[in-house]
Amino acid sequence: MRVAVLGAGDMGTAITAPIAANGHDVRLWGTTHDEHIIAALQAGQVHPRLQHPIDPAVNLLHADQIEQALAEADLVVVAVSSGAIDIVLDLVLATGMPVPPVLSLAKGLWHQPHEPVQVIGDRIQQMTGAPVIVVGGPAKANEVALHLPTVSVFASDDAGANQLASDLLQTPMYRAQTTTDRIGVELAAAMKNAYAIAVGVATGLEARLGLPHQNLKAALFPFAIEEMARLVHTLGGHPATVFGLAGVGDLSVTVAAGRNRLLGEMLGRGQPVADALAALVSTGMTIEGHAAAQHGYQMVRDIEGPGGIDEFPMLQALHRILFDGAPAFETLWDAISGQT
Amino acid sequence: MRVAVLGAGDMGTAITAPIAANGHDVRLWGTTHDEHIIAALQAGQVHPRLQHPIDPAVNLLHADQIEQALAEADLVVVAVSSGAIDIVLDLVLATGMPVPPVLSLAKGLWHQPHEPVQVIGDRIQQMTGAPVIVVGGPAKANEVALHLPTVSVFASDDAGANQLASDLLQTPMYRAQTTTDRIGVELAAAMKNAYAIAVGVATGLEARLGLPHQNLKAALFPFAIEEMARLVHTLGGHPATVFGLAGVGDLSVTVAAGRNRLLGEMLGRGQPVADALAALVSTGMTIEGHAAAQHGYQMVRDIEGPGGIDEFPMLQALHRILFDGAPAFETLWDAISGQT
Repeated sequence: MRVAVLGAGDMGTAITAPIAANGHDVRLWGTTHDEHIIAALQAGQVHPRLQHPIDPAVNLLHADQIEQALAEADLVVVAVSSGAIDIVLDLVLATGMPVPPVLSLAKGLWHQPHEPVQVIGDRIQQMTGAPVIVVGGPAKANEVALHLPTVSVFASDDAGANQLASDLLQTPMYRAQTTTDRIGVELAAAMKNAYAIAVGVATGLEARLGLPHQNLKAALFPFAIEEMARLVHTLGGHPATVFGLAGVGDLSVTVAAGRNRLLGEMLGRGQPVADALAALVSTGMTIEGHAAAQHGYQMVRDIEGPGGIDEFPMLQALHRILFDGAPAFETLWDAISGQT
Repeated sequence: MRVAVLGAGDMGTAITAPIAANGHDVRLWGTTHDEHIIAALQAGQVHPRLQHPIDPAVNLLHADQIEQALAEADLVVVAVSSGAIDIVLDLVLATGMPVPPVLSLAKGLWHQPHEPVQVIGDRIQQMTGAPVIVVGGPAKANEVALHLPTVSVFASDDAGANQLASDLLQTPMYRAQTTTDRIGVELAAAMKNAYAIAVGVATGLEARLGLPHQNLKAALFPFAIEEMARLVHTLGGHPATVFGLAGVGDLSVTVAAGRNRLLGEMLGRGQPVADALAALVSTGMTIEGHAAAQHGYQMVRDIEGPGGIDEFPMLQALHRILFDGAPAFETLWDAISGQT
């Protein structure tokens, strides 16, 4: 079979490992931002961020070679950030070639000024008309690249497309649990970055006070999970999705390390939010959770009654911390201790 | 109000901090095993394990002073290990004094040869006839002793007793979330120790192979949660309890450190189970999760059809690893990848 992977970032590159191991024809296409990555890989060097070499069977393609990437492809894997989805899909559509099922590795929400926030899978479906499979669950790219044990969640309304995708990608060490709850998986994948900021505050407090705060950390975690489950329910997904790999699993790997946790840590240490963000952004980091907190908040802000903003005290607290400069620990502690 | 805390271990001693801070008359009674602790505290020294001094308002009582502990008590807090419950309650009953509501901090299952395994709250209720409140959720004793932010779950069939207990114990930093699902809270509190062994295996594998296994760790966690929820459902509790503080919260603090995680780590490194257990037991550690895996397994082993042992592949895997010497990673990976 033939698989086009669009985007040569960490995850796009990593996912070629199980696909190539299965013996498929994999094309890794780099965007204009990925030119240096494709060049490095073509020169036999390691991927500049992943620091791993790529399977020699993978065909490496530059930004102007998208037609070669798509030629007779049975599956397109979209592995660009949420902000680049429209640009890349426009390039795909401009080829005039038929679009096979699309598997999305993007974890975030689609947003444009003056348009309602939506999940990326819906946007891909609108633009391409193709069946869409979205991937959630805990999957650090470097471990997928090394064939280390990973269980992802593949979600699609289209059972046939989901079967095709999981058959193509699954190996003994890269497993796919399938579900029809695409909305739930996408919301969990996006919102866990926001809630990881909240859990990170406990780590920052430990550093600031020189005292362990494991009880706080372990309390923030289930409150986050329960709130994400209510959010998913409110927006048309299944709470059970959040209690599995896509929620509990992905949040646990996200709070173990990473930039969203780091922002929370800086806030917990008492750094003002503007300073913390400026410091992180200056190192080239994108803090997806910062945007997710804003977009998640927007999605429930105007709902009256059940499912409305009052059912999301942690998200409200996060919004006040990130956008109104409220003190991190006190605001979060009010939000969770108000539920006792 | 008057509160008798029976057992001067870490948690019994720690819980006197919020109660004393609320201005109640607290008596901390030590068992015959706690004589050195009571003596140290009476001499103004720190608690030998907690390493914190005790609030000077706490009345310290020796093993032969149980009547003084119980005199006109409004609440009895039982803070001994699950194996010592019968002994301590026999001492209480032998005084002939009326037994007020009993709050249990014991996390484990009651078991005796040739008798069915049961939750400790049921045993306390049988023996005393008093209303019982059990406590779950993530609460490391040293943090409770220092008034660091903690949210526990108080569970009771008796709403009045639960209200009394939470009024007595809650402070601005020690919060109690109340529920009627006593069975769910008790099972989660006991079984999280068993499942923490499984999650620990990923950490051991990291050490053995010198490679990160964060994806595996973050996959084992939600599979454990989902299985604990099914177990609670099967045995008469509410799955939602497991998705909150008592399950997700307590498991997350348990896998972050501690002896149950450590046993899993040793198994993940490839140590035979007998050697790992012998090494831990020789340092005086009790591995509650080892017994919990056995007792949890016993509780579902004989159920046919829905709720039967086939719905608990991780518990089956743990049982094979701990009691049949099956290889840790391979057995667990089969159990979870078989669900994809």
